[in-house]
Amino acid sequence: MSDKPVAVAINEEGPREGFQIESGSIATQRKVELIDALSETGLKHMQIVSFVNPKRVPGMADAEEVVKGIKPKSGVDYTALWLNEKGLERAMAAGRLKIEGKISLCPSEKFLKRNQNKSHAEQVAYNHRVLDMYKEHAIPVERASVMAAFGCNFEGDIDPRKVVAMVDEIFAIAAEHDIEIKIVSFADTMAWATPRSIKRVIGAVRERYPDLKLSLHLHDTRGMAIANAYAGLEMGVDRYDASVAGLGGCPFAGHKAAAGNVCTEDLVFMCEEMGIRTGIDLERLTDCARLAEDIVGHPLPGSVMRGGTLNKLRAAAH
Amino acid sequence: MSDKPVAVAINEEGPREGFQIESGSIATQRKVELIDALSETGLKHMQIVSFVNPKRVPGMADAEEVVKGIKPKSGVDYTALWLNEKGLERAMAAGRLKIEGKISLCPSEKFLKRNQNKSHAEQVAYNHRVLDMYKEHAIPVERASVMAAFGCNFEGDIDPRKVVAMVDEIFAIAAEHDIEIKIVSFADTMAWATPRSIKRVIGAVRERYPDLKLSLHLHDTRGMAIANAYAGLEMGVDRYDASVAGLGGCPFAGHKAAAGNVCTEDLVFMCEEMGIRTGIDLERLTDCARLAEDIVGHPLPGSVMRGGTLNKLRAAAH
Repeated sequence: MSDKPVAVAINEEGPREGFQIESGSIATQRKVELIDALSETGLKHMQIVSFVNPKRVPGMADAEEVVKGIKPKSGVDYTALWLNEKGLERAMAAGRLKIEGKISLCPSEKFLKRNQNKSHAEQVAYNHRVLDMYKEHAIPVERASVMAAFGCNFEGDIDPRKVVAMVDEIFAIAAEHDIEIKIVSFADTMAWATPRSIKRVIGAVRERYPDLKLSLHLHDTRGMAIANAYAGLEMGVDRYDASVAGLGGCPFAGHKAAAGNVCTEDLVFMCEEMGIRTGIDLERLTDCARLAEDIVGHPLPGSVMRGGTLNKLRAAAH
Repeated sequence: MSDKPVAVAINEEGPREGFQIESGSIATQRKVELIDALSETGLKHMQIVSFVNPKRVPGMADAEEVVKGIKPKSGVDYTALWLNEKGLERAMAAGRLKIEGKISLCPSEKFLKRNQNKSHAEQVAYNHRVLDMYKEHAIPVERASVMAAFGCNFEGDIDPRKVVAMVDEIFAIAAEHDIEIKIVSFADTMAWATPRSIKRVIGAVRERYPDLKLSLHLHDTRGMAIANAYAGLEMGVDRYDASVAGLGGCPFAGHKAAAGNVCTEDLVFMCEEMGIRTGIDLERLTDCARLAEDIVGHPLPGSVMRGGTLNKLRAAAH
């Protein structure tokens, strides 16, 4: 238990994850409204848009306008997602964003093949090209991620040793470019994780890389996200992606296949109630969650925004 | 970690908790349909109705008809809730039910006062009368519960020592009636628990009563139920109340104040995926969860019924 961190860093992904999955069109101004409100909560890292093909993801066609519209808050890093050089160039041109490079591997070759039409060797080669591209644009790279680190719909359970092998390869790829990876994120891409697999995978990585900074990206498709985050805390993981109100997939709106990331305010509630600092004002964050629900126009999965926080009750009780 | 049980017993409370909270009227036949379907999943304990004032809880006015309608499955204990002698007599007259007595205390006197209009001393006296009543009817008593064991809207945080003191008093009350309490349940009545308070309270009780059978009753109002159940598993707790589909409170239907118990199929999924046996057929249980949703006519909070189980994917992957 003593591995539990005293503080965690939360990377908010709700605006990007949420707005790109919503079927109805959401006004640019409302996206900006949510991002600006989130900026006032104490969140320090936020992925707000993706620069992808507007024909494939029409909900993100206004990415440049969103970036232009926000009131950047000092001390908050706004980031974006891109999938190719064109997207990266759009992100760089948009201004205001923190541009960070990243590489990723996947222990499930079957998933890689289906999702990105690449073999593992092709993915390795692709990462080399990506690092060349970042070098050309003088973009720092400190992060990497391992997709499907806890299980795969097409390959089944993933051996933790395979995940460790991916981390080994990530370091090897980066070393060829004189890059030092500082943070590795483990994504439960298809929501296979339970607290047991979280502990096994993180434990295996931790054993080999005791000082590496680890992060978790946890989808809630099978309702395990908060328990998995707790298992991560017990293993000393102090970085989490999360999504306000659980934006990014809504089982109640017909998106049956996948739910969003672990709900930010529920995660903040759990951490703060356990004495783990998040630096986030939970009351303001629950206001943001209710705002997100108002913007998308349908119920979102978050609980604390409905159930309420405890601090006012606690204060009133004394 | 070695405290984790190899198997858990789940007490299904969905039919009772769910049908009494639903605002619309549900046909008796449909309640029976769900109970009979649940009987085929491997669940061994099920609370199916409450015998309470039909004017106050109209959704349970047909309790006798529900009991009469089911096809009792051998090996399944069907139980009921009652709040006074009249209710108990109705339950006994209904037949087919396993009639078990129970006493309960609450470490928050403010909650007791508001909820039951009793002081702690009055609650103790009431428990003595209840045990007399059970003796008169020759009803066995092996269970007790501690309400609001993890926090209270009116009294705030609850000191684990106060919870232990309640267990002490429960044993003292029972001893006066030559009754041996074998199982004590700890209820997170107002959803204050996080994994930390679960571990602190259960740890304190466990330290004083190493061999007592412990049970958890966890509400999901703040989204913590599954993480709290996991913390319970880590502490060796092998009995859980749960509610199929999360029946018993639905944040998506305007019941903002309280959510249901931890969702049965999500809990079964977590346990089975972690190698903890439940004796329950998860595929059949998720069918029941979808049936429950069909019966109440609105979305229910369960995740695995939407996200799907892993065993078929796992089998197909090999």
